[in-house]
Amino acid sequence: MPKQVDHRERREAIAHALWRVVEQQGWARATMREVAREAGVSLGQLQHYFSSRTAMLTFAIDFAAEQTSHRVTHGLAALDQPPHPREVLRVVITEMLPLQPDARTTSRMNAAYVLEALHNPDLQAQASLGLREGKAMVERLIRQALADGQIPSDRDPTVETDLILALTGFTPLLELDVVTPQAALAAIDQHLGRLFHPSERPAF
Amino acid sequence: MPKQVDHRERREAIAHALWRVVEQQGWARATMREVAREAGVSLGQLQHYFSSRTAMLTFAIDFAAEQTSHRVTHGLAALDQPPHPREVLRVVITEMLPLQPDARTTSRMNAAYVLEALHNPDLQAQASLGLREGKAMVERLIRQALADGQIPSDRDPTVETDLILALTGFTPLLELDVVTPQAALAAIDQHLGRLFHPSERPAF
Repeated sequence: MPKQVDHRERREAIAHALWRVVEQQGWARATMREVAREAGVSLGQLQHYFSSRTAMLTFAIDFAAEQTSHRVTHGLAALDQPPHPREVLRVVITEMLPLQPDARTTSRMNAAYVLEALHNPDLQAQASLGLREGKAMVERLIRQALADGQIPSDRDPTVETDLILALTGFTPLLELDVVTPQAALAAIDQHLGRLFHPSERPAF
Repeated sequence: MPKQVDHRERREAIAHALWRVVEQQGWARATMREVAREAGVSLGQLQHYFSSRTAMLTFAIDFAAEQTSHRVTHGLAALDQPPHPREVLRVVITEMLPLQPDARTTSRMNAAYVLEALHNPDLQAQASLGLREGKAMVERLIRQALADGQIPSDRDPTVETDLILALTGFTPLLELDVVTPQAALAAIDQHLGRLFHPSERPAF
């Protein structure tokens, strides 16, 4: 196996160990020492792969974003082709929410990471960039659907993009069982239904 | 001054010290020792007021909720009386978001607290209860507005309540400058405008 691939695999195994620590013990426990213990390597070996805690967190968050992206790609492949933009947005939103174990892990990583980023300028630039890329992707979908007449022309693409992103606000409500997964999905479907077919609101 | 009031004042002063530590250094640094240092008291004195870190965090979060409630009451008093339910919901949502320094502090406290609660059953019960009370308050407003014909009768009160709560999803977007305060307020106003007057959508 080429050396570079092996290096990448080791780093991914360490990122998985970090996720387990965050999932089971919380972000504050995710020290280099604790992650080394969880990964079954020495602190010195860990430091060979990551020179600092910030470098480790940066890699782990990028890797989490990659995993979310894989889940979205997989979800999109399961849709009728070509997929309706409403269905594309539904997959993007639901894969960001803690609705199943993989997504819950990456969701907790992201929430902890935003808080840590407020006190760590290196992480802040990366966190902000990640969110901006997500926003740009949603906005492209909305603008295309507007151009294709799937969203009424009186909707403002910026407002609609921001309202879609804000649906990630279901995260703490789901984590603390204040809203059930079924209720969150019903609300998301209502929101998307009104965006794409505002004149065809179902009667309850 | 009666002893009980003095006790309460000391606890509030310690809660303010805790907030400053969370605001400036992050949640992970909010140890009993660090809060004692920030409050200018000995660790022994701090332990006289709070027997454990969990007891201190519980009080500080309850106190943050009280402060948010005071800000909401103040915001409501500034509205035309009796206030329109759309304006009441606007005040409730905006005071939950990190749009000005006081609200930013309590918002960061809450975000960190939700994450800590996932690994601390005592905090989890309290966090869940606080969110449920907020949800019940929003739902009462929505149901009253439905009964009063201010919201169209084909809207589902549960779905509308959940979509209002999800607007707190603007928190990380505001914290990381991905959405401006102006854009968040514009999106919130659009959402509320459509809830109360869905047939009068402004043309852009």
